[in-house]
Amino acid sequence: MRIGGRHYRSIWLAEDGWAVEIIDQTRLPHDFAMVRLESLDDAVRAIREMEVRGAPLIGATGAYGLSLAARRDASTEALETAYRALLATRPTAVNLRWALDRMMAVLIQLPVAQRVEAAYRHAADICDDDVAINEAIGRHGLALLQQVWAAKGESGRLNVLTHCNAGWLAAVDYGTALAPIYGAYDAGIPVHVWADETRPRNQGASLTAWELGQHGVPHTVIVDNAGGHLMQQGLVDICITGTDRTTRHGDVCNKIGTYLKALAAWDNNVPFYVALPGPTIDWSIRDGLAEIEIEERDPQEVTRITGRNREGHVVPVEITPTGTAAANPSFDVTPARLVTGFITDRGVCEASEAGLARLFPEQA
Amino acid sequence: MRIGGRHYRSIWLAEDGWAVEIIDQTRLPHDFAMVRLESLDDAVRAIREMEVRGAPLIGATGAYGLSLAARRDASTEALETAYRALLATRPTAVNLRWALDRMMAVLIQLPVAQRVEAAYRHAADICDDDVAINEAIGRHGLALLQQVWAAKGESGRLNVLTHCNAGWLAAVDYGTALAPIYGAYDAGIPVHVWADETRPRNQGASLTAWELGQHGVPHTVIVDNAGGHLMQQGLVDICITGTDRTTRHGDVCNKIGTYLKALAAWDNNVPFYVALPGPTIDWSIRDGLAEIEIEERDPQEVTRITGRNREGHVVPVEITPTGTAAANPSFDVTPARLVTGFITDRGVCEASEAGLARLFPEQA
Repeated sequence: MRIGGRHYRSIWLAEDGWAVEIIDQTRLPHDFAMVRLESLDDAVRAIREMEVRGAPLIGATGAYGLSLAARRDASTEALETAYRALLATRPTAVNLRWALDRMMAVLIQLPVAQRVEAAYRHAADICDDDVAINEAIGRHGLALLQQVWAAKGESGRLNVLTHCNAGWLAAVDYGTALAPIYGAYDAGIPVHVWADETRPRNQGASLTAWELGQHGVPHTVIVDNAGGHLMQQGLVDICITGTDRTTRHGDVCNKIGTYLKALAAWDNNVPFYVALPGPTIDWSIRDGLAEIEIEERDPQEVTRITGRNREGHVVPVEITPTGTAAANPSFDVTPARLVTGFITDRGVCEASEAGLARLFPEQA
Repeated sequence: MRIGGRHYRSIWLAEDGWAVEIIDQTRLPHDFAMVRLESLDDAVRAIREMEVRGAPLIGATGAYGLSLAARRDASTEALETAYRALLATRPTAVNLRWALDRMMAVLIQLPVAQRVEAAYRHAADICDDDVAINEAIGRHGLALLQQVWAAKGESGRLNVLTHCNAGWLAAVDYGTALAPIYGAYDAGIPVHVWADETRPRNQGASLTAWELGQHGVPHTVIVDNAGGHLMQQGLVDICITGTDRTTRHGDVCNKIGTYLKALAAWDNNVPFYVALPGPTIDWSIRDGLAEIEIEERDPQEVTRITGRNREGHVVPVEITPTGTAAANPSFDVTPARLVTGFITDRGVCEASEAGLARLFPEQA
């Protein structure tokens, strides 16, 4: 990923070789600031306060959080305590559990003295694997976008609508939903992105707009209400979103509001794709609506918005009458029937148990 | 309508008998302030800057705007200039045209010397008619809500989802979509309202929350993304919205995002009703998608939000990276097939040409 022309990942080891550094995403797009994580508590806070967010990056941060915990106390008891603390930060994120389980499976087998070094090595592997996965999603997604572009007669521009942020900043590099878009842009397709604002935390208006801008990809921010109208008007050629968790039947749990866009795409015959790293598939569940617990976040995310005031300071403002009650479900479930297909690191498939089983036969 | 226990309309004549007073809705919910309109220019500005908004109130303000213009110059030429200036403020609002046409039809027939007095009298009639219409919508809507409540076995609470603001503040009194809700509350039904925030101008989070709070009706503000999830979870018993313009076939043009909620209601078998004063029906058009011009407003409504900062001042904050492009379509069209029915001043009917013709045979 490029920021001001320089290459970054979204999480990396500090020069001292043990502390972990991240970009504080709560300060984007107004400030670009890095944060140093030195302890389990730092990692827990970074995930909970959403300084890091996005399923793959949360997983990577969890892995490094266990490494930092091990550095202080590598006993099985301490690691299990750290595991529970990290897992509790974001109950909906299946990558987090996957990354933590992968770390624990290795560490618990080792003598205590070898655990710290192994933890760092495996956290780095998780990051490298994520980069490879997202690069592959980008490659397969590019082939799909080339088809859509060809079907449009290569005229005008290729309009892609996305919701929330599933780009560089949500992963270790490349991103999931945005990886095909960067691929298309780099391949010379005149791609244009409709970026849903994505209330309440505005990841689209802030993070997606910011990272597309850093890469030079043309984009337009819209309120979450507008996408259906744009589809009715023929102004969206394809929708691509990420996912926090996908069931073996293909139901997609993603940022609140994804379901509404999928309905509009379905109603207007716009293809609706979900970009999906293998680890976000939860093979243990089938019915997303019945089986996925939806995280309810702080109502103040709804009643307040943070932005830059005229003096250039980033401040919160209250947008409801004082004392107004708000509800804040963070995710919704889009049934597989509304999803045209998945863009995975192993290729594109239909959103169904059969489609997923074809690409991931070892899990089916 | 009640504000701090006192009765108000949303537009009224000042004590001097000629100036017009309104509530500056751009300052709600943080400040309750009145504005005095003394000229055509004042009325044009009040509509364009959305100090008044909502189809019926825009119509009433247009009528008084013509009266103020007539007071300065009642010649046919001056009135026609005023008519065009007022009509240009909000091209989507069919009530505005209806109110202005009704005024002009009367005034042009009269000797110039009688026009000022006639203009004020007819503007007052338009306001009184609107109050009567909305009171009737409330009465018919209450009967509908009583049915829904009975069908639910009168258990728990009656959950109504609404989008934007179609209440007191959008009309001269009572409101359209909220009139049945006030009726239900006053009749002792334990009604609870999910108020969509309604980006970009946040009429739900500010105006709907404020006026429901003034009346004491329990309500919860949600982001526009959340309604689909709530419907999937069985937490919405009925949706009621207003409309800016409705075709003779029953297509509904309303605040951007209404279409997405109608899709979700349809997908979850939640009844979706539109509250509709007769004058918002545009009998001259059939296909809402093909025939209604959608107003595109200032992109800064998307990139900035106004709210109250920690010091209590109402300020704008920028929420996108500086220089980000934004699109801002203000309305969308919900096809009649997604609308369960209309709540009109003449009763409830199905959303179709036949349904509307049954209630408004003189127009059909």
